[in-house]
Amino acid sequence: MTAQRLKIGCAGLGRMGKRHALNFLERTPRAELVAASTPDDSEIEWAKVHLAPYGVKIYKNYDDMLKHEGLEAVVVASATAVHAEQAIKAIEAEKHVLCEKPLSTSVEISQSVLDAANAKPHLKVMCGFSRRFDASYRDAYNKISSGALGTPSVIRSQTCDKLDPTGFFVAYAEFSGGIFVDCSIHDIDLTLWFFGQDSKVRSVSAVGITAVEPDLRKHNDRDNAVGLVEFYDGKMAYFYASRMMAAGQEDTSEFIGTKGKVTVNAQPQLNLVQTFDAGGIKKEIPQHYYDRFEYAFVTEANEFTASVLEDKPVPLKLEGAVQAVRIGAALQESLITGEKIFFDESGQRVQKNKL
Amino acid sequence: MTAQRLKIGCAGLGRMGKRHALNFLERTPRAELVAASTPDDSEIEWAKVHLAPYGVKIYKNYDDMLKHEGLEAVVVASATAVHAEQAIKAIEAEKHVLCEKPLSTSVEISQSVLDAANAKPHLKVMCGFSRRFDASYRDAYNKISSGALGTPSVIRSQTCDKLDPTGFFVAYAEFSGGIFVDCSIHDIDLTLWFFGQDSKVRSVSAVGITAVEPDLRKHNDRDNAVGLVEFYDGKMAYFYASRMMAAGQEDTSEFIGTKGKVTVNAQPQLNLVQTFDAGGIKKEIPQHYYDRFEYAFVTEANEFTASVLEDKPVPLKLEGAVQAVRIGAALQESLITGEKIFFDESGQRVQKNKL
Amino acid sequence: MTAQRLKIGCAGLGRMGKRHALNFLERTPRAELVAASTPDDSEIEWAKVHLAPYGVKIYKNYDDMLKHEGLEAVVVASATAVHAEQAIKAIEAEKHVLCEKPLSTSVEISQSVLDAANAKPHLKVMCGFSRRFDASYRDAYNKISSGALGTPSVIRSQTCDKLDPTGFFVAYAEFSGGIFVDCSIHDIDLTLWFFGQDSKVRSVSAVGITAVEPDLRKHNDRDNAVGLVEFYDGKMAYFYASRMMAAGQEDTSEFIGTKGKVTVNAQPQLNLVQTFDAGGIKKEIPQHYYDRFEYAFVTEANEFTASVLEDKPVPLKLEGAVQAVRIGAALQESLITGEKIFFDESGQRVQKNKL
Amino acid sequence: MTAQRLKIGCAGLGRMGKRHALNFLERTPRAELVAASTPDDSEIEWAKVHLAPYGVKIYKNYDDMLKHEGLEAVVVASATAVHAEQAIKAIEAEKHVLCEKPLSTSVEISQSVLDAANAKPHLKVMCGFSRRFDASYRDAYNKISSGALGTPSVIRSQTCDKLDPTGFFVAYAEFSGGIFVDCSIHDIDLTLWFFGQDSKVRSVSAVGITAVEPDLRKHNDRDNAVGLVEFYDGKMAYFYASRMMAAGQEDTSEFIGTKGKVTVNAQPQLNLVQTFDAGGIKKEIPQHYYDRFEYAFVTEANEFTASVLEDKPVPLKLEGAVQAVRIGAALQESLITGEKIFFDESGQRVQKNKL
Repeated sequence: MTAQRLKIGCAGLGRMGKRHALNFLERTPRAELVAASTPDDSEIEWAKVHLAPYGVKIYKNYDDMLKHEGLEAVVVASATAVHAEQAIKAIEAEKHVLCEKPLSTSVEISQSVLDAANAKPHLKVMCGFSRRFDASYRDAYNKISSGALGTPSVIRSQTCDKLDPTGFFVAYAEFSGGIFVDCSIHDIDLTLWFFGQDSKVRSVSAVGITAVEPDLRKHNDRDNAVGLVEFYDGKMAYFYASRMMAAGQEDTSEFIGTKGKVTVNAQPQLNLVQTFDAGGIKKEIPQHYYDRFEYAFVTEANEFTASVLEDKPVPLKLEGAVQAVRIGAALQESLITGEKIFFDESGQRVQKNKL
Repeated sequence: MTAQRLKIGCAGLGRMGKRHALNFLERTPRAELVAASTPDDSEIEWAKVHLAPYGVKIYKNYDDMLKHEGLEAVVVASATAVHAEQAIKAIEAEKHVLCEKPLSTSVEISQSVLDAANAKPHLKVMCGFSRRFDASYRDAYNKISSGALGTPSVIRSQTCDKLDPTGFFVAYAEFSGGIFVDCSIHDIDLTLWFFGQDSKVRSVSAVGITAVEPDLRKHNDRDNAVGLVEFYDGKMAYFYASRMMAAGQEDTSEFIGTKGKVTVNAQPQLNLVQTFDAGGIKKEIPQHYYDRFEYAFVTEANEFTASVLEDKPVPLKLEGAVQAVRIGAALQESLITGEKIFFDESGQRVQKNKL
Repeated sequence: MTAQRLKIGCAGLGRMGKRHALNFLERTPRAELVAASTPDDSEIEWAKVHLAPYGVKIYKNYDDMLKHEGLEAVVVASATAVHAEQAIKAIEAEKHVLCEKPLSTSVEISQSVLDAANAKPHLKVMCGFSRRFDASYRDAYNKISSGALGTPSVIRSQTCDKLDPTGFFVAYAEFSGGIFVDCSIHDIDLTLWFFGQDSKVRSVSAVGITAVEPDLRKHNDRDNAVGLVEFYDGKMAYFYASRMMAAGQEDTSEFIGTKGKVTVNAQPQLNLVQTFDAGGIKKEIPQHYYDRFEYAFVTEANEFTASVLEDKPVPLKLEGAVQAVRIGAALQESLITGEKIFFDESGQRVQKNKL
Repeated sequence: MTAQRLKIGCAGLGRMGKRHALNFLERTPRAELVAASTPDDSEIEWAKVHLAPYGVKIYKNYDDMLKHEGLEAVVVASATAVHAEQAIKAIEAEKHVLCEKPLSTSVEISQSVLDAANAKPHLKVMCGFSRRFDASYRDAYNKISSGALGTPSVIRSQTCDKLDPTGFFVAYAEFSGGIFVDCSIHDIDLTLWFFGQDSKVRSVSAVGITAVEPDLRKHNDRDNAVGLVEFYDGKMAYFYASRMMAAGQEDTSEFIGTKGKVTVNAQPQLNLVQTFDAGGIKKEIPQHYYDRFEYAFVTEANEFTASVLEDKPVPLKLEGAVQAVRIGAALQESLITGEKIFFDESGQRVQKNKL
């Protein structure tokens, strides 16, 4: 006799795909990674070494993987450009879906995933906003939710990557949707989480610069940007996104209530070590997003699995993922045009004087 | 034989006036506080106890104090509404002037102090932006100036006061010029310091809320506000000002260069004590602005005195004080109208489409 | 085809036993928990729910488990009193052994485990000093080993438990070997790791008090103790152990070299959250040892498994576990007698004047 | 009319003497530095520039200074070897005395200062243990005194100097009394303060090494030492002193009560600046004792002055200064002999078996 395990396949075996595949293989006891797909030959070679020996079937074609005997769920961890298409195909094939963020850089395409999911309410479809599964963010959320810190009113949150001196992110910017859709989407999701999923945006405005990589401008992007989001219920949030941090990944958030505040990662750190030498006291910090959020991804895999096996709601609603893209895309537009953008309470864009 | 000491008078003996008077009396060895003026009877009583016994002459009338035999300099520490008038009178009476910030909440009146000072270049006239004299900000400035952290490109700075539950600041808002002119003026001054006094503003935008004190709206003010300032040379700054901090004064700044950053007060603290009890680890933080910057005010008094005695330039130019009011007032306007405001490179306001 | 997995059984399903069992079941992909044993009925009930459904066979009798078909290794996580006996039985039954610390509270019995292991050099026998597997301690070790901080010369290390108001630890003291053998054993092991396994003790001295639990004296124990260990090569270490921390678990270490130092956990923390409220800034800290070292135990399980499967040396030598008990027991004796104890370079106890 | 000011003279103008002289001249408003003495010609030259212009009379001979017209008090800031002699002479000349620590490295000579002071109870005689005037230690003391953290039971405290690569401290060790008398005396004084001045020592033991400066052994000193002090009332303290810190001055204390603890300077820092660069996050720390405690010395000067002018008890009793030397000297003896030293409740040394 054995306990039931969720048979899942992983779409995409790039940087994040490998991590998701291994997390489902090794660190999600109630799941069984049965398949993985990638069109990339070198990724297939990797899979032959790291996945196949444990009984994972490797597919070159995603559609073939969907037909894998007994497959119940798919984690979509491929390039952003195919997230939506693969998610929709999986839904149509009656698979549960955990989709990496964002659903798409396009609001309309993101909405189409939501529509597909809504048509199959018996399936669990979740967009993987990893910070929702981070122990520190959850502790912060509980503290805010307790009411002890009053009404949450102002949020400051940033997603700041270490400078990649290869300039990789210039090419990447062509498809990323821009810094607000690629990076700040996490901060936007946190804001919707802490302020409430139904928060209505009144205005967005943004400013940005290219301090290290002027070529980003040709893809309508910036390497540093600040965005300001005003909500209808007397709340506001402001976001900073950057590609040029020197020390490492700096993802810091502040949730400010009328009676107190909580911060998450106000003092970044790699671990509990401090070095004292002639320069003073030093602490290292995580170098990349995954260094910081590795265990959140493991929790995400475990909780998605539990949601399916126990037929419980997934921990975060898919509607929020569409709303986050909507806000991110508006900030990106404001960043490029320099214009402030206003919305009425129904979410329609309006001229300021029509408010 | 004694070394020369600067004979100075203090205008105003309110909260800040008392501090300035005592700093010049007791902690500025090269100055001699010879006079103080206040129209307020209770302040005069205080002065009889704390100043008069040490040879300080007390005046009920500012104009009379200006005629004090041998008076060389005046520290203007009265209500903001009379800063400019008293400073100009002192200049006209051939006194050196250290004026509390802001010169005025009005750009034009601020400019009139600058004009008066420019007409008497032999006099030292300085606006007291206390953070310029804080050891931590100076250390940060030196680190940025060294170039080791690359080009300073993004500044985040906040001036956040502890909530005063008496609601005093509502009445105060009638004359304060608003939260950006009263609080963020410090952050604006820091920005001009770190980016360079000649930095040209391209746009400002701001959003605010009244989370704890809706009555502020009748004075066109807010209790929490975020402002975004874009400069012409590919730099930007963003400011947060608040009247509702629970723990105490939280004045934090971040100066972000292309190769690294420095933070000042990212972890506020009252002193070096930590308490471990059943709730975890606790640190107290300064309750008020003066708790945080007391020694900066002492340094300010000493350096202003040295500038006069040694006929050296004052540590910060008076032009900057006018520019800071200009930016603060524009942010305050944007906060209230909701409109983004644009400037051309000559500093004139323009429509976006005229840029 | 599947990759080879280590068939392991868990002896003991008390507090630590449950954790080891689940770690081998769920978080050690290369191991397969096939069996578990406990004489305790309530633990057997727990195992029926949490282990049996996944194919783990439950035994009431340890000797029976040792005969489990195909069993290759045992994790001994039972009461300290039976650690040695069970470890030796497993060795004699040709099983690899991961034994919880300490091997025994008796130096002689600890040595008997080492003797048994030495007689079967083809078996992997390891004592689980969890801090050796903690990412922060490993980072600290690498930094010290690099030589950049000079010769490690002084170690300060503490194992301080949160006060258990039930007084459980009084009864526990009867069998624990005392606070230096039960708690400081970790700090002693760290010292042997960082100073080198062959470090020779010259003297030990210790002082202790019963600040919260005078009844400990009847078991020759204390609730707070400080021990001092002098080594022959011009190094020294000092340890603090306590049962009365208010805030939580405080296990802090400092490794001081001639050119710098590293600290581990000098600022304890539960996670990356800070709360700002009227009391100042608060951070919570881990409440118990396992909260702090959970992932170290997972790493320990994985690395022990890899050592066996790949026939590599285990990460820490069993000799060290005996040496640690030897030092801990000497400290405990000094704590109770008040006498300083001296050793010659061969490790024999001598009178001071015989050195 | 002027308020009364204390006429004080400064004995010694070496490193600490200059600081005391300037503190009384410039930062002690109720005192008037009227005289200073030093036999050293270069110090006299310094005094001509920095003191004489402000009306301070400079003496080459201490005895002559004592006869200065109107002199009321003396701050003894000369070499330790003459502290006691100068203090006693001042007392005999009817002057109030603030004496730098220690009174002497000899218990007997220290006692002779106490005897002289006791013979003239109308005079204020204080030994300058600077940490008693530090805002953080005072805050810690208030927190402990409030009782909220239970009974203070264990103290850990360290005085650790930055390595002086010139090896100056080897020559200095000839007269310093040794590392426990020179450095740990502060920690001992803190212990007597927090545990109560009447705490009775039961035993002391100490161990030390010469990790960087073996030549210290010829002066019976060590460059790193740990001492353990056991008290009769179920309390204990342990001290670490070092001359080899790489990062700067590290004076950390921990006061552990039965319900919680306070730490002072557990995270040393020069100021509120943090630098983020490719190495991570860096904080600088104070380089020397005076960097850390500058404002404590200013407070000390002001409070001593107030005690005299207002005829109030000095903030710390002179008896404590003798007791601190007594404990320090015993620790130093234990450090060198390796023997643990026991005392009976009357403070007499005894054999262990006589307790």
